[in-house]
Amino acid sequence: MKTLKIPEATIIRLSVYSRLLDYLHKNGVMIVSSGEIARGVDGSPAQVRKDLAYFGEFGTRGVGYNVKDLNEQVKKILGLMHKWKVIIVGAGNLGSALIHFKGFKERGFNIQAIFDNDQNKVGQKIGDVPVYDILELEEHVKTKEIEIAIVAIPARHAQEVVDILVNSGIKAILNFAPCVISVPRHIELRSVDLTVNMEILTFNLVVNKR
Amino acid sequence: MKTLKIPEATIIRLSVYSRLLDYLHKNGVMIVSSGEIARGVDGSPAQVRKDLAYFGEFGTRGVGYNVKDLNEQVKKILGLMHKWKVIIVGAGNLGSALIHFKGFKERGFNIQAIFDNDQNKVGQKIGDVPVYDILELEEHVKTKEIEIAIVAIPARHAQEVVDILVNSGIKAILNFAPCVISVPRHIELRSVDLTVNMEILTFNLVVNKR
Repeated sequence: MKTLKIPEATIIRLSVYSRLLDYLHKNGVMIVSSGEIARGVDGSPAQVRKDLAYFGEFGTRGVGYNVKDLNEQVKKILGLMHKWKVIIVGAGNLGSALIHFKGFKERGFNIQAIFDNDQNKVGQKIGDVPVYDILELEEHVKTKEIEIAIVAIPARHAQEVVDILVNSGIKAILNFAPCVISVPRHIELRSVDLTVNMEILTFNLVVNKR
Repeated sequence: MKTLKIPEATIIRLSVYSRLLDYLHKNGVMIVSSGEIARGVDGSPAQVRKDLAYFGEFGTRGVGYNVKDLNEQVKKILGLMHKWKVIIVGAGNLGSALIHFKGFKERGFNIQAIFDNDQNKVGQKIGDVPVYDILELEEHVKTKEIEIAIVAIPARHAQEVVDILVNSGIKAILNFAPCVISVPRHIELRSVDLTVNMEILTFNLVVNKR
């Protein structure tokens, strides 16, 4: 496969296309054109065709794409033919918001547990997800073979928790703590930095006034 | 200024450097080398020098950068010499998490109000921020000259709320709703898509196994 050099922007769009395809499939649509996909995601038909062409020939010229087949191919590319075992560290407002976020479950991310050091939260449930003591984190990740951890705790404890996750054999981390996190090369790490996102907006606002 | 063609990756790093410089300045550090900045953000000294060179000559070879001056320059570039008037739409878990997120205030984002359609929340406060009825959104943005809105509501209502914000004269929107949002060209829009972030991780996990 030619997947190794795909730009991240393409992966981002594939993820968005795939949710549209999910929606179309649920609503009984069987064939879709690149133009219809483009309209559904506010993009261009040429971009859609280019993105899908990275992965071979899916469509039939003049007819379009089979919604179900295309979605299966795109999900396979995105690693979504498999259900992922996920935990969240941090049962604060952000952790709770993430538990209630339906998008994760719909896409095959099964959030199985949430960890916190607040003894008032340990033993409770958030939605239908149990809260465990942070001291059980390492053992839980090891024995339950958790693959992905979402880190939603303050910056000052983030590296410490990430080190525990790395030692436990986690494969990937989505980090929301607003700080620089180091992991060994074999771990996939992605940080969602809210301040950075705001500052890209203000940079653009100021640049456009210059 | 040469700022118009700066890659977004550079802006992201500048935002991270600036938070490190804030920290150094608060702790009385006056001079910093590109190597020290690089260590603080888990980057390379050459990258730091290259990023800062977009904006002219800041440092003195063999001495380093004046922390206070450099931070002022970087903040100016990022549009942070100005305090921004911000509101949040959506007083759910995510909106509440964002209210309590200290990083925004520290960087000059003043969250002045939060809007929701839940009458049990309207009239209350989250932290020290008042919750208003969503019906007051348009008038509030206009009269208080709000510049940036953070949209933290379910996907099905997101475009409707964004249209109201656009009509009210908002300048920029940070969107957390997991859907495609359209705005006129003169509005800055940035979407933080949690599912996409997870799927970049799984894509990378699967690619690395191939």
